[in-house]
Amino acid sequence: MKILILGAAGMLGRKLLSRLAAEGLGGAAVTTAVLHDVVDPAPASPLPFAVECHSGDYAAPGAAEKLVAGRPAVIFHLASIVSGEAEARFEEGYRVNLDGTRALLEAIRALPDYRPRVVFASSLAVFGAPCPEVVDDDYLCAPSSSYGVQKAMVELLLADYSRRGFIDALALRLPTVCVRPGRPNAALSGFLSSLMREPLNGEEAVLPVDEAMRVWIASPRAAVSYLLHAASLDTGPLGARRSLNMPGVSVTVGEQIAALRARAGARVAGLIRRAPDPTVARVVGSWPQRFDAARARALGFVGDADFAAILDTYIAEELGGRLPAP
Amino acid sequence: MKILILGAAGMLGRKLLSRLAAEGLGGAAVTTAVLHDVVDPAPASPLPFAVECHSGDYAAPGAAEKLVAGRPAVIFHLASIVSGEAEARFEEGYRVNLDGTRALLEAIRALPDYRPRVVFASSLAVFGAPCPEVVDDDYLCAPSSSYGVQKAMVELLLADYSRRGFIDALALRLPTVCVRPGRPNAALSGFLSSLMREPLNGEEAVLPVDEAMRVWIASPRAAVSYLLHAASLDTGPLGARRSLNMPGVSVTVGEQIAALRARAGARVAGLIRRAPDPTVARVVGSWPQRFDAARARALGFVGDADFAAILDTYIAEELGGRLPAP
Repeated sequence: MKILILGAAGMLGRKLLSRLAAEGLGGAAVTTAVLHDVVDPAPASPLPFAVECHSGDYAAPGAAEKLVAGRPAVIFHLASIVSGEAEARFEEGYRVNLDGTRALLEAIRALPDYRPRVVFASSLAVFGAPCPEVVDDDYLCAPSSSYGVQKAMVELLLADYSRRGFIDALALRLPTVCVRPGRPNAALSGFLSSLMREPLNGEEAVLPVDEAMRVWIASPRAAVSYLLHAASLDTGPLGARRSLNMPGVSVTVGEQIAALRARAGARVAGLIRRAPDPTVARVVGSWPQRFDAARARALGFVGDADFAAILDTYIAEELGGRLPAP
Repeated sequence: MKILILGAAGMLGRKLLSRLAAEGLGGAAVTTAVLHDVVDPAPASPLPFAVECHSGDYAAPGAAEKLVAGRPAVIFHLASIVSGEAEARFEEGYRVNLDGTRALLEAIRALPDYRPRVVFASSLAVFGAPCPEVVDDDYLCAPSSSYGVQKAMVELLLADYSRRGFIDALALRLPTVCVRPGRPNAALSGFLSSLMREPLNGEEAVLPVDEAMRVWIASPRAAVSYLLHAASLDTGPLGARRSLNMPGVSVTVGEQIAALRARAGARVAGLIRRAPDPTVARVVGSWPQRFDAARARALGFVGDADFAAILDTYIAEELGGRLPAP
């Protein structure tokens, strides 16, 4: 089976590739992985399938046609300008997040007898305040950011292209993925990963919001599991509605800090410094605090048990189980 | 006050222009009306303000810039490929309904210190089955047609451009406008007008759906009143959510035929012939049967009293009060 990953050099893309190498996809072996990102997405270690790397601007004229020319059966679309950048660079956000995706869909539609599974990383940013305490799959998409608008517009396109038979798509509204390894990115929710990651590395972290803020999160491991499950799922029961709220853990920032303290000690948790940022507080605070992910669960999507499990996954996968000295 | 009407040669555009001539806009007089449509939108009779006519493809490169160059204070955006045509001509629907509107918004954004009121004719086609019996302003937009997807995508753009301060927009989700004068257009809901109009003209009408189908409609007069009210409304209370479900009348097709029989007699109502059309039944049947328009009503939007009033408005305005001989 040939697959394509857009955004393959990103955190989720790299983890997805490792899982595909270890587990295959829905019982089938991957034969070729076509990888794309703005930077070279070449994997660091050898993989048990052929790898074809592309780098550059996938929204540029002609780029999408090249990526789908080999007719990958499954396309993981994880490429995106993140929320902070889409807010700061208005045109670029629409060009990459909306127009780039549309070019991809048009390139697929131009190929006769081709109807790939498309798995799109959407986001809880498609919702905006005021939200009910628990947001279900029937709630209005009224985003508070340009990023959320671009994700919501792509969801509409995916549903229409699926209805017309050009693709067979799922849009997964991922919770905020946390704890992310590596360096902070320009996502407005990036502080949530920094809050745990930096103290665990002996570094200071900045808390831009109130500790009472409640967020909806999933570990990178859970997020990758969602992508894999969506790639081989029977889409019949979904009907026309191709967007799904994914399972997550509802937790306050204060509860996260308490969990860090319980796991790694007061000195580590003491590395968090308060520095309120009204933009971050407004946008992230407008996202849902809890999804009703009943539809996703019924379709077999399984999330993290609780925040302690999310923290443990990070410590095991990224720190080899080692904690800083108390 | 300078205004721009996109889709000025259409039924709503022409009626809007007459009302602007008679009533002005929000207590102010219109000084110049810039009119645009694919065909020449020149009004048949003289108007009490300057008229500037443009015809052609508003989605063509450079067209939108010309239309907004004079900085109209209010833009009525009624231009659209209708539902049946957007379903039949996939690319053209997206090009005109989505890309054309985006070009308009970008042309506005390019002008410094310019933030016009934009009143957009959206549609109940932004919703799709399954819908609750009464659809409120918080319900998910999950359209069943490409037309509905394009309208929903534009609604998202209007909200984002408003939030960013480039425009001050309202999207009015109009009920199916009925009874439309003139000839049938390619809208999938067109049969609703034909059902009343053709028999009142002594002609046969085709009924493609079951008489039990319930629809949500407004007279052309009510629809124009909504556009006028939206043009001068204080948008403060709307907040970030710029799309509004408009008031309408919920009525079954059978009740409409009964009202026609009561008003014009059995011979006229007998001109209706059954000819089921599954596409029309599926798409129109997926639209909401009733809105909760409480938010719109609180903002001062006033609709038709009932279906008998809608029929009377048509007979008075379009037939000079004359009914065919019984």
